[in-house]
Amino acid sequence: MTSSLRRLFVGPIIHSKSLNELEVIPHAAISVFKGRIEFIRYDVIDKHEQEYEQIVTLKKGQFLIPGFIDTHTHAPQYVNCGLGLDMQLLDWLNSYTFPAESRFKDVEFAKKVYNKCVSHHLKNGTTTALYFGTIHSEACVALGEIAKQKGQRAFIGKVNMDRMAPDYYIEKTQESLKETESFINKINGIDGCVLIRPIVTPRFVVSCTSELLEGLGELVKKHQVAVQSHVSENQGEVKLVSQQHPECPSYTHVYHDYGLMTEKTVMAHGVFLSDSELDLFSKTRSSISHCPLSNFSLGSGVCDVQRALSKGVNVSIGTDVSGGYAASMINACRTTLIASQSAKFNVTHDYKDTDGMINRIKKEEQQETKYKELGLSQVFYMATMGGAKSVGLQDTVGNFCVGKEFDALLVDVEDQDGPIDAFIDDYEYLYGEGHEEKKKILDLFQRFMFCGDDRNIKNVYVRGDKVL
Amino acid sequence: MTSSLRRLFVGPIIHSKSLNELEVIPHAAISVFKGRIEFIRYDVIDKHEQEYEQIVTLKKGQFLIPGFIDTHTHAPQYVNCGLGLDMQLLDWLNSYTFPAESRFKDVEFAKKVYNKCVSHHLKNGTTTALYFGTIHSEACVALGEIAKQKGQRAFIGKVNMDRMAPDYYIEKTQESLKETESFINKINGIDGCVLIRPIVTPRFVVSCTSELLEGLGELVKKHQVAVQSHVSENQGEVKLVSQQHPECPSYTHVYHDYGLMTEKTVMAHGVFLSDSELDLFSKTRSSISHCPLSNFSLGSGVCDVQRALSKGVNVSIGTDVSGGYAASMINACRTTLIASQSAKFNVTHDYKDTDGMINRIKKEEQQETKYKELGLSQVFYMATMGGAKSVGLQDTVGNFCVGKEFDALLVDVEDQDGPIDAFIDDYEYLYGEGHEEKKKILDLFQRFMFCGDDRNIKNVYVRGDKVL
Ligand SMILES: [Zn+2]
Ligand SMILES: [Zn+2]
Repeated sequence: MTSSLRRLFVGPIIHSKSLNELEVIPHAAISVFKGRIEFIRYDVIDKHEQEYEQIVTLKKGQFLIPGFIDTHTHAPQYVNCGLGLDMQLLDWLNSYTFPAESRFKDVEFAKKVYNKCVSHHLKNGTTTALYFGTIHSEACVALGEIAKQKGQRAFIGKVNMDRMAPDYYIEKTQESLKETESFINKINGIDGCVLIRPIVTPRFVVSCTSELLEGLGELVKKHQVAVQSHVSENQGEVKLVSQQHPECPSYTHVYHDYGLMTEKTVMAHGVFLSDSELDLFSKTRSSISHCPLSNFSLGSGVCDVQRALSKGVNVSIGTDVSGGYAASMINACRTTLIASQSAKFNVTHDYKDTDGMINRIKKEEQQETKYKELGLSQVFYMATMGGAKSVGLQDTVGNFCVGKEFDALLVDVEDQDGPIDAFIDDYEYLYGEGHEEKKKILDLFQRFMFCGDDRNIKNVYVRGDKVL
Repeated sequence: MTSSLRRLFVGPIIHSKSLNELEVIPHAAISVFKGRIEFIRYDVIDKHEQEYEQIVTLKKGQFLIPGFIDTHTHAPQYVNCGLGLDMQLLDWLNSYTFPAESRFKDVEFAKKVYNKCVSHHLKNGTTTALYFGTIHSEACVALGEIAKQKGQRAFIGKVNMDRMAPDYYIEKTQESLKETESFINKINGIDGCVLIRPIVTPRFVVSCTSELLEGLGELVKKHQVAVQSHVSENQGEVKLVSQQHPECPSYTHVYHDYGLMTEKTVMAHGVFLSDSELDLFSKTRSSISHCPLSNFSLGSGVCDVQRALSKGVNVSIGTDVSGGYAASMINACRTTLIASQSAKFNVTHDYKDTDGMINRIKKEEQQETKYKELGLSQVFYMATMGGAKSVGLQDTVGNFCVGKEFDALLVDVEDQDGPIDAFIDDYEYLYGEGHEEKKKILDLFQRFMFCGDDRNIKNVYVRGDKVL
């Protein structure tokens, strides 16, 4: 399907070179051939127009960024977006999530939901998604086919769960394993692992017996596939796991014991991880998928991302639909910034003192820490490169490096029906003359990341193809 | 301008009866005459169609809610939405806010921005806004005229500041007072205080001398107008105020000493208020405008709304554009829920323990408090009735009581280009038969409040007139 056109994109680009380095190139030219970035020029080039079958010249207010990588979202729960958010995790699972997910036995119903779900993620700029499906492998294969057809890069997970689940939505251990292996082969067959890949998906320790986890670990080794699950989301859950596995020093160690902590493992949440658990992530090069909207919505807690990063753990970002109500990575980025401030307030503020302002400030000054909250550059890295790294795609997508596949969004902050009033023509009048072009592009990028939505994502490209 | 048509609205309505009581009426009929709610029937009525010049019958997926009341937004800062959010309050004021605000001396420029600003707030469902303008009274009068012309209910504040501001954006005390009185009269003249009203607006204690505050207090008394300002937003600011006013026991007491704490006073933020300050709010019946997005964005802190409510203080919600980057009360409601969870985590969680999960959970159990985070019902009350109460409009707008003016939004969760996939026709299939109609309407309301945006606000009514 990938076009063999040679395409040239001319205009500003913004991408992450590393966690702390956001690169802004005001006049770039990216040449894309057979889905890959052939070269990038850093200034206006002499276009040899005859060489290109298409030249996309960006207009004022437009720029290119890498597509977002959503490393944690539940495709069937898309039907529940916005519902049941007055509950905590375990209640919410039983009242809303399991009943809805059990309906995906019905493949026609699943297709209807999955079509809407994939479209929604895609139009919000998610070029790569790590999907949890349900236990139903047929519906999960359909999800893979829908993603393929719509041109999204996707990891498809058939969920495994053989305990602590309602009678109407549970599997038998050996059947679950057999189904999973057959599922892996079917997904691998969709397009030969180019865009659509399988990912082993135990729901979480709570709902998987040791026998199941062990069998899944063997499948991971045999088929060299990625792994996704949940870890340490909620205090009740952590307690349950500690009771289920008294032999293990921690929740994370349970996954590790069964061979499920690999360099292509993505664990959602990690709100209450201990230092030794973070060390285990770092050692195994497994990643956290930070899902702040879900953590706030279900009242779980706030993951201290800076702490994980400082231990060398790779952190990506997930929407966690529908624990998170927004299937939008722009929204997830904003909420990551909020969560980071919240984590900082936890560390640095004491709101319980009622002695009046003077005493309080004195106290604050004594307690002051060097805690630094995340900035937009770091969050954008997590939402693109962090995601790529988490599933072994760091040399394939995530930024605009030569040789990588071109997964990109053409952003337009000037969309007339959109939510942004960017006042581009008033820039000098407002902020004075003499600003660098880079600074002006960066301001547009900030307008988009804070005030934009799907209306500002004009085109979506996956592997060089315009898919939206 | 208010229409003398008699209009009937037939369909589901949702509004707040009190802080904890959200009323859902699946089949209501609201009769509106000369802008006011004449009667409400709680079931399908025999329409005497000849009595009505217009009957609006809601379709599937539609419902009516009261318009939002944004009790804190800076109209000139609308140009800065999304910019400069890597700074804290005092730096941000000097780098972005003051330079931009100083441009509003240019009335033509001001009109251009204010037109876009009012339109944006209105299409996001803000039927009443409390605007901070700039120090320039001519531009502020233009803002009042624009709000009037667009049909929004608005309180317009000419900002006062006579110290601690840059040379290019500061006033002389007596001129500031003279301008303010003339401004009050001009705004009162726009439509005789029906929709557009003046509000006295000292920027904050930091930038107002005692002489200025005293003079403003006298104007408030003489003209019986509302008051808005900022209080206790940021720790650096609180410290500065304590140095400026060593004679006062607290920041809030400074306002009180100058007659600026009244039952029509709205103070933004209140993040670090002491118990005695909250008592003062309660005693004077002044209100807090909670602006969580701004508090997170500028790294100020998190206001513990439950604590203020438990002391009997009225709390409303503000977007605080552009400390808050979103001129949307739906967004502000969502962020209020997040801030409440954040406040709860501050009280109940200890993330600094690294002893591993078991010890941590034991510790948590010992520390467990009865803290309850805010729910959507309470937040919606704050965004409607809380706002009405804060400026003495509790008998005029805020909910659908007979005799009140009809400020309302016609919400449509089924908008084809919108962000919501509501799966209305699959409700029974997903969640089983036999659900009450109220529950189904409430689920649609939740879809809107969590997943919706301006695309789902089909019509906006102010005082019975369709203004959008
Ligand atoms: Zn999840
Ligand atoms: Zn403000």
